[in-house]
Amino acid sequence: MVNWFWRRRNRVDAPRLRPRSQVTAASTRVDLAELTPDALSFLGHAAYVQLTIFENLSRVIANAPTTEAKAALSEAAARSLDTYQALVAEIEREHGDVGAAMRTDAPDIDRFQRFTQGNDWFESLITCYVTAGFLDDFFLRVAEGLPQPVGERVTAIFTAPRGEKQLAELLSAAIAANPRLGARLALWGRRLVGDTMLVARAVLRASDNHDSDEARIEPVFSEVIAGHTRRMDALGLTA
Amino acid sequence: MVNWFWRRRNRVDAPRLRPRSQVTAASTRVDLAELTPDALSFLGHAAYVQLTIFENLSRVIANAPTTEAKAALSEAAARSLDTYQALVAEIEREHGDVGAAMRTDAPDIDRFQRFTQGNDWFESLITCYVTAGFLDDFFLRVAEGLPQPVGERVTAIFTAPRGEKQLAELLSAAIAANPRLGARLALWGRRLVGDTMLVARAVLRASDNHDSDEARIEPVFSEVIAGHTRRMDALGLTA
Repeated sequence: MVNWFWRRRNRVDAPRLRPRSQVTAASTRVDLAELTPDALSFLGHAAYVQLTIFENLSRVIANAPTTEAKAALSEAAARSLDTYQALVAEIEREHGDVGAAMRTDAPDIDRFQRFTQGNDWFESLITCYVTAGFLDDFFLRVAEGLPQPVGERVTAIFTAPRGEKQLAELLSAAIAANPRLGARLALWGRRLVGDTMLVARAVLRASDNHDSDEARIEPVFSEVIAGHTRRMDALGLTA
Repeated sequence: MVNWFWRRRNRVDAPRLRPRSQVTAASTRVDLAELTPDALSFLGHAAYVQLTIFENLSRVIANAPTTEAKAALSEAAARSLDTYQALVAEIEREHGDVGAAMRTDAPDIDRFQRFTQGNDWFESLITCYVTAGFLDDFFLRVAEGLPQPVGERVTAIFTAPRGEKQLAELLSAAIAANPRLGARLALWGRRLVGDTMLVARAVLRASDNHDSDEARIEPVFSEVIAGHTRRMDALGLTA
């Protein structure tokens, strides 16, 4: 695990609760443009990540203990699939091949999926909640460095309504009924951050200067982790 | 296994290829109205069946061998989720509780899902293709007995575009590359019919007269099996 990862970890202890709108309009704006890949690479990565989030949600639906939970989660799965299909439409607009565009980073993303699977239904559920929110926020920031008009359209895709509320409600109810579950999910939520950061930054294109790259990425992750802290806080859990 | 099931089986040897539009406009129209459940029971059953089809599709996406296959299957999953959500909207319009409406027949439908799972990826894929098509056709017929205007809206739901084409293309390509796979999938496709018929007819409300019930159901299954034969034929397989 590289060094920036630990530096991020420490930040988690000082939660800065900011709604997403403020995260994307922070005054200390950091420019990721130099590290931004071409649009097709970004779209292929983001589409395959979204498909992975959708697969995770689907597994959680299939294993849901009640028809009520299935119904609530289906909403989140539908929104995730909307996002995926909107990204696919952008790939096609760029004259890209969807399968090929997604293939490039598939091994990294598949590994991310394996590592973040969770050991039971609740861990899988909080994985959906935490990683989807984190990656949405991160991709929104990366989208700022994309050429126009595709950058604007990608921003619209990642600010469209999500299923976050339904997931938070299911998790909150379960945690309220079983405080020990909360402690375990807080731990799992913390573990997820490392793998999610790795799969997020894998979309960026490194320059020759490792130090300046890290200096650019670090403040973006600080912002995105603030969003993560807010999401955990919404469940009554410490990030 | 009851008697009508075997009678259906024999019919399969005499394929009558009719497009869906003709199936639903057959001249020898049989009335299922007396066996039709109330709208809420129908909608709860159909919604949970659709969620099961969606779950099966999602599992097939998660295990797909290529990003191209994942992309093609996502289209079918999206359409399935659209259907599910449209049925949920109808449940809400009838002032029903979605979780409760789906719960009634959930054990039967879960058992159907287990029995039709398939032993590998291709069997799971043809399960999605065969069962979705069969149940769509059957529910379309049942919808004719629902009160208006809900019956009309349900008909619109089940005649909306599906992902059948994408599934057929994936299956045809795999069968063309491996004839032995075709023989195995023909067998599996035949096995699916029994369990699919059972879960289909479970939505109906039996009267006191078993014989007249069967006499009403039998011709409807004949029509729906003609659709099944057509779908298998589209893959170059004998039903």
